Amino acid sequence: MKMALSLARRGLGVTWPNPAVGCILVNNGQIVGRGWTQPSGRPHAETVALAQAGNAAKGATAYVTLEPCAHHGQTPPCSEALIKAGVARIVGAMEDSDARVSGRGFEQLRNAGIAVETGLCAQEAAQLNAGFFLKTQFGRPLLTLKLALTLDGRIATRTGDSQWITGPNARRAVHMMRARYDAVLVGAGTVRADDPSLTVRGLGISHQPVRIVVSQGLNIPTENTLAKTAQEIPVWLCHGPNAPLERKKAWGSKGAQLIACESSESGLDPLSLLNNLGSKGLTRVFCEGGGTLAASLLNADLVDRLVIHTAGVVIGGDGQAGVAALDLDVLAHAARLKLVSHRKLGDDIEHVWERS
Amino acid sequence: MKMALSLARRGLGVTWPNPAVGCILVNNGQIVGRGWTQPSGRPHAETVALAQAGNAAKGATAYVTLEPCAHHGQTPPCSEALIKAGVARIVGAMEDSDARVSGRGFEQLRNAGIAVETGLCAQEAAQLNAGFFLKTQFGRPLLTLKLALTLDGRIATRTGDSQWITGPNARRAVHMMRARYDAVLVGAGTVRADDPSLTVRGLGISHQPVRIVVSQGLNIPTENTLAKTAQEIPVWLCHGPNAPLERKKAWGSKGAQLIACESSESGLDPLSLLNNLGSKGLTRVFCEGGGTLAASLLNADLVDRLVIHTAGVVIGGDGQAGVAALDLDVLAHAARLKLVSHRKLGDDIEHVWERS
Repeated sequence: MKMALSLARRGLGVTWPNPAVGCILVNNGQIVGRGWTQPSGRPHAETVALAQAGNAAKGATAYVTLEPCAHHGQTPPCSEALIKAGVARIVGAMEDSDARVSGRGFEQLRNAGIAVETGLCAQEAAQLNAGFFLKTQFGRPLLTLKLALTLDGRIATRTGDSQWITGPNARRAVHMMRARYDAVLVGAGTVRADDPSLTVRGLGISHQPVRIVVSQGLNIPTENTLAKTAQEIPVWLCHGPNAPLERKKAWGSKGAQLIACESSESGLDPLSLLNNLGSKGLTRVFCEGGGTLAASLLNADLVDRLVIHTAGVVIGGDGQAGVAALDLDVLAHAARLKLVSHRKLGDDIEHVWERS
Repeated sequence: MKMALSLARRGLGVTWPNPAVGCILVNNGQIVGRGWTQPSGRPHAETVALAQAGNAAKGATAYVTLEPCAHHGQTPPCSEALIKAGVARIVGAMEDSDARVSGRGFEQLRNAGIAVETGLCAQEAAQLNAGFFLKTQFGRPLLTLKLALTLDGRIATRTGDSQWITGPNARRAVHMMRARYDAVLVGAGTVRADDPSLTVRGLGISHQPVRIVVSQGLNIPTENTLAKTAQEIPVWLCHGPNAPLERKKAWGSKGAQLIACESSESGLDPLSLLNNLGSKGLTRVFCEGGGTLAASLLNADLVDRLVIHTAGVVIGGDGQAGVAALDLDVLAHAARLKLVSHRKLGDDIEHVWERS
């Protein structure tokens, strides 16, 4: 199952709106088939593994990281395919939360006389597809916030100088993380200040996440890197109800997709933003700041994971804060996050936190 | 030698103005004597180990973490004692930088026909007494700055609520660190806001470091915890040239020691402060903030080690900064620190950085 989970992980970032699943077929102690969900979600992991195994699937045990689908969608259900191939036993990590599957896949297999066991590595499997489950249950994707900070929590000097706070190893790790997410999300201030490309580079990975910019008034110049490359790699602009028509047209003509979100008192409503992204099919969103967007997401309790890269440098209290004002008076009212991991990353340190 | 270094470490915080030294005597493969520098620096490690070994010191090998002293001070030199006891061989980690010793200890021993080897674990030994060497070479103690920060580098909410950012394990680690330093140093703002006792508590350790407060104008109420306990545990107040006489008298009558330092444009001159503390004999000073003092020391490049406890909580940009303004415009002009260690500490993370 650990091996199947590791195969599943290869699909992170590319299988949306579908979950990333892994499947291993074992017959007589030999692995006869390995599969994981292919880009955009098809073919499914089981289909790939069964095709690889051929006749050897007969009498085999299938290890699947998620309950096989049971409904006729764009492809015939995997439960039928497993039955037809003569698989003798299924070990599943967990049930699918999708209402079209939820328990029915395992039921069909049991009804066909196949031995079904579930719950092996259930926690790892749930963690792996946390984004997919959030989307099916709450309609919004998993949100990871990444911040590259100085020891005193700054992202730039008072004049805006921010290149580079962290070193090449940390920056490479960020590209690796981008590749594992469906989309990269930043605020308009970051685009205006840094003109970023937000692509995955230097890793030999061809998958590019959707690039999303939050800008209530669409006050972003169309002469930037994102606009220039919007035809090749998707750019989505999330704007407020009152964004000027001419700016929408300008960005639309560059090839960007425009997504209208609701406004709140202090800017674009973060929940409306995430619900819109969920309804577009996104399961995993990687936010890279800036401070205003980070504060807005934290304030709405929408940050599921927080990845911090801390560099051995101090900018001081007049530098730009990594997280903008939260209007917090009493410390006990602040949400506490749980430390998940920490490691040295070149000259920097990476620490990962989760909602506790 | 590792064992001798570990004995030496027991003296950190209590041997000032002397270095913390460890000595092990080995005869015929048996440890016959163990010693480390006793409080206030006397007796020396070698004296303690020789007394323990008695006649067994004859023909023994002495492992010493620092060159034995060669001068007649308050006690006869250790080099003579080692010769008199009939020690056959000396393995020393490093030479003493004190001008009264520097090479002469080892020379005397060699002249007496004793085999002398040096340089074993020299780096660890230098690290251990870095404060003593800084004092003998530059007249100032080692300065460690400790900050307990939120993920976004804050030490309190905008209203000043700061208890507690870090958890009990991190706070216990701070008491452990205090015990290993000669003195604890804070700014006047911290004393006014928190009324701290700055003592070592809850560890069964009787040693208490000197408690030092930096206050240019001595604008600190004398009805606080420090004033009440100044008779039992030393309180030193470092003030500027223009501190009002009546405030000096008020604090003097409470038992505090007053230390006049020079002023700079932005407050008390940090180099003058540390030089004054060095001339009082301090070798290791543990600064616990607040943000203004931290910024002043960092700006003067006087922070040798930076210990950060990061808690899984975000306060936001309107909270109080852990380090005050540094007037830094260009990131490349900021000093880079080197990561020494990182570990989980209860629910928090500790990361330690050093001047690179």
